[in-house]
Amino acid sequence: MNSHKVRFVLINTTHPGNIGASARAIKNMNFDELFLVSPRLYPHEEANARASGAEDVLKQARVFSSFQEAVRDCHLLFGTSSRQRALPIPLLTARQGAIRINEALRVGQKVAVLFGQERIGLTNDELSACHYHLMIPCNPLFPSLNLAAAVQIIAYELHLALQDVELPSSISSWVNTKEMEAFYSYLQETLIKLEFLNPRFPGHLMRKLRRLFNRIMIEENEMNILRGILAAIRKKIE
Amino acid sequence: MNSHKVRFVLINTTHPGNIGASARAIKNMNFDELFLVSPRLYPHEEANARASGAEDVLKQARVFSSFQEAVRDCHLLFGTSSRQRALPIPLLTARQGAIRINEALRVGQKVAVLFGQERIGLTNDELSACHYHLMIPCNPLFPSLNLAAAVQIIAYELHLALQDVELPSSISSWVNTKEMEAFYSYLQETLIKLEFLNPRFPGHLMRKLRRLFNRIMIEENEMNILRGILAAIRKKIE
Repeated sequence: MNSHKVRFVLINTTHPGNIGASARAIKNMNFDELFLVSPRLYPHEEANARASGAEDVLKQARVFSSFQEAVRDCHLLFGTSSRQRALPIPLLTARQGAIRINEALRVGQKVAVLFGQERIGLTNDELSACHYHLMIPCNPLFPSLNLAAAVQIIAYELHLALQDVELPSSISSWVNTKEMEAFYSYLQETLIKLEFLNPRFPGHLMRKLRRLFNRIMIEENEMNILRGILAAIRKKIE
Repeated sequence: MNSHKVRFVLINTTHPGNIGASARAIKNMNFDELFLVSPRLYPHEEANARASGAEDVLKQARVFSSFQEAVRDCHLLFGTSSRQRALPIPLLTARQGAIRINEALRVGQKVAVLFGQERIGLTNDELSACHYHLMIPCNPLFPSLNLAAAVQIIAYELHLALQDVELPSSISSWVNTKEMEAFYSYLQETLIKLEFLNPRFPGHLMRKLRRLFNRIMIEENEMNILRGILAAIRKKIE
């Protein structure tokens, strides 16, 4: 699988641990392009420690002294921020933004997503250089995400948008309706033999048992176990 | 805005920083219920540092010595893991799982999401106690997310799913994990008395029966029927 082509740009990052954690977060979601603008402490052992398997992404990370330089070959810039601004630019949620970015990539645009300094986020100047303002929906009373956590969510939404998600499948052999009916008959007979069920009025209780078993899809091998239990009961009491 | 009611359970966490970062991650997404099972180092200053504004969630976090205790009042358990297992349980992506959890909360079920130890994830035993296996779609060549990053993505998807328009709900009285355990014991004893189960090797078959019953949420009145059937069997054969 080729890596997705979106650039993640971290501006003025204070904690080197967040740089390493961001490298890991984007690699987890199949990205590899990390650009750093004036990081306070970098390279740093804390960045390596938190990268934890994404040292390759960290090693390739390019460092710039201005964000304009870091995005000069890009076409479309997305600035992440939890705060609305006085002079707003078009605002998208992370999920909406991912769809927009997918569209951009498919027409050959180069896209960068910008993340500001931990404490203050993107400055007004940085955000106003962007085409879109990306916002991660969250608790309005506690909206400040950890930097690497924000990178993780954006990378995750992009990964989902940029490829069809295929889950590994596990095919089972399921019991069909006819087999279920045979099971219910056998169950009903057995419950009557157990004197648990009144043979003159089986309906109410059997309906409840059907309602219960209808909430599961039963596999063939499980049905064999259930039938085995009923057979063992009948052998014992007959 | 009231906080969302889902329990986040971290099992055998090695790094206290991940506990603090998880507290922050869930508070960012408007959750506050963090349960810890046998954390290696806790309380710890690194947990406090990474909580960074979520010290209240951390302070309320309850600590247990077994995960069974931490979820005994819960009805529906979701285990997060990036690995498929030999005996699979129903598999959902994070997004699908969030929709399923929304449905469960609306019928009055108490839900917990379990996260395993950093290096190894959930054990087979822990995952097989769950009703669903939650998987975060990611890079198959580098699927191991940082623990707090995984918590962040799950909390984010849940926040989005739970703030949806509220549908009318129908509250039932559900059987909880503790009552299910009592049922399994009674079932196992009964199957041994029936000579259906070899008392020296009950494990394999009981795991299959657990896997089957874990796919249903059982109501109290249904449990009374099941228990009644087992009692009738024992009365008959004793």
